[in-house]
Amino acid sequence: MAPARPDPSSWLQLHRTVRFGETDAAGVMHFHQLLRWCHEAYEESLQRFGIAPAAVFPTPQHMPEVALPIVHCHADYRRPLVVGDELAIALTPTRLDPSGFEVAYRFEIDGAEVARGLTRHLAINATSRQRAPLPESIQRWLEASSVGAGVQPL
Amino acid sequence: MAPARPDPSSWLQLHRTVRFGETDAAGVMHFHQLLRWCHEAYEESLQRFGIAPAAVFPTPQHMPEVALPIVHCHADYRRPLVVGDELAIALTPTRLDPSGFEVAYRFEIDGAEVARGLTRHLAINATSRQRAPLPESIQRWLEASSVGAGVQPL
Amino acid sequence: MAPARPDPSSWLQLHRTVRFGETDAAGVMHFHQLLRWCHEAYEESLQRFGIAPAAVFPTPQHMPEVALPIVHCHADYRRPLVVGDELAIALTPTRLDPSGFEVAYRFEIDGAEVARGLTRHLAINATSRQRAPLPESIQRWLEASSVGAGVQPL
Amino acid sequence: MAPARPDPSSWLQLHRTVRFGETDAAGVMHFHQLLRWCHEAYEESLQRFGIAPAAVFPTPQHMPEVALPIVHCHADYRRPLVVGDELAIALTPTRLDPSGFEVAYRFEIDGAEVARGLTRHLAINATSRQRAPLPESIQRWLEASSVGAGVQPL
Repeated sequence: MAPARPDPSSWLQLHRTVRFGETDAAGVMHFHQLLRWCHEAYEESLQRFGIAPAAVFPTPQHMPEVALPIVHCHADYRRPLVVGDELAIALTPTRLDPSGFEVAYRFEIDGAEVARGLTRHLAINATSRQRAPLPESIQRWLEASSVGAGVQPL
Repeated sequence: MAPARPDPSSWLQLHRTVRFGETDAAGVMHFHQLLRWCHEAYEESLQRFGIAPAAVFPTPQHMPEVALPIVHCHADYRRPLVVGDELAIALTPTRLDPSGFEVAYRFEIDGAEVARGLTRHLAINATSRQRAPLPESIQRWLEASSVGAGVQPL
Repeated sequence: MAPARPDPSSWLQLHRTVRFGETDAAGVMHFHQLLRWCHEAYEESLQRFGIAPAAVFPTPQHMPEVALPIVHCHADYRRPLVVGDELAIALTPTRLDPSGFEVAYRFEIDGAEVARGLTRHLAINATSRQRAPLPESIQRWLEASSVGAGVQPL
Repeated sequence: MAPARPDPSSWLQLHRTVRFGETDAAGVMHFHQLLRWCHEAYEESLQRFGIAPAAVFPTPQHMPEVALPIVHCHADYRRPLVVGDELAIALTPTRLDPSGFEVAYRFEIDGAEVARGLTRHLAINATSRQRAPLPESIQRWLEASSVGAGVQPL
């Protein structure tokens, strides 16, 4: 019997609530907060998938060999967001080449899209800053997420 | 038979994880993020207690009659925090006078205190900016939290 | 004799220094800070051109009739930035249609491009949230900036 | 003839403008931004005094032997601040003991105090995290600032 396939929705479907300090004097979410939410969703997704943050991100005790800096990001805003809005965030990670990947983020309220974001990451050697292969843990996350996308398209 | 007393730990004991963008080049959480966490914990506490964010905080559709600006805050840092650290946050809200209250925040990792914060709020009329009585919803949250503190000291 | 033409470099060529809290544990500027810098450069540009911030952005005393929310943004990162890096920021504002404009931002260190950003803005009526003509002050800034671009291409 | 004494106001009297993304839906500056302004003023002060940021703060190329983490901060808010407000910031750095100092920040608009902040720093060895003597550059800044305070009290 085949082993149970893990359910990608557990690491690709996240939630957060808009907080007061994320709004501006126009009364709505200030645009650059969305990019912060994207990165935090990416971190939470890795963690839920089983990758310890300190395995991918540096701490004073441990600098991972490979860094994953963002080389491009973009965002589109469809509807104003206000304090207390409860957002569903759907992540779609995609491998681009042996040292690159991107993550698309779709933000919804009650099933309606309110914003989209994207972060593109390049794997580099943390010391030489030359291109490097993606860390194995990230490769596993990309593969498992892609399988999930087949079964359960976002 | 007395009705079940609601368990204050459901709105006074919160959790969050340190994210990469909250660290600085020394590898640890950058100090002012803690004050943001304090306010977000206060918002989450009100929400879990049953107060809709838009009842207390302004949106373009609705400006509450009473605003609750912070007139003082402070924080003490005991241990450096790194990406992925899972924090327990214990809130202790206290009524100070008819138009003021403060919230103390204790941050712990595995039961050990790592930081403390405090925000002091003053109720003012949103238009005249004169002192006003605390909104009834905030008063109920303060009372229920105080009852809880007696039963279950933080 | 023609009146002296104002020099657009005074409002389209700005400067800022990378601060410690804008770096992350990888030692370099955390990506989403750049989008904040873009918006702050746009605000500073308007102000240097002679548009009072409160004429364009809301305050508790005054809600401008027209809001200019961002509907799209993007950024590209060419080189890591570290604390103390002194950035030159060149802005290129462009009118898109009667109710839209975008601003491109080029970040340089010692003449070398280190990053690019873009914010696209839509003029809407602050109450109805329907498309509105660009405020006259913004139109003057766009025109004067465009004249400048002809004389002194970025 | 005695050499000219440097004028401390050049590194202890700073300025900044409140930006739109620093306000919240109540229309005024969101409280925790002030703590960020404090740290950025401290960095700018050191830089104007002649201390290169990378001599004090870590970069990927260089980790200073001594780190200066904040162990305490506080702030008091006297008046709401709105977008475009032009702030004068007066810094008062004080040596506390061989490995500690604090910086008081007074924020003014047109000579009237609008807020105060304070950051307390502890010098530690970046590797062992044990108390260390203050770096010589910081000692010189503290002394020169204190001389200045005698001549020109804040």
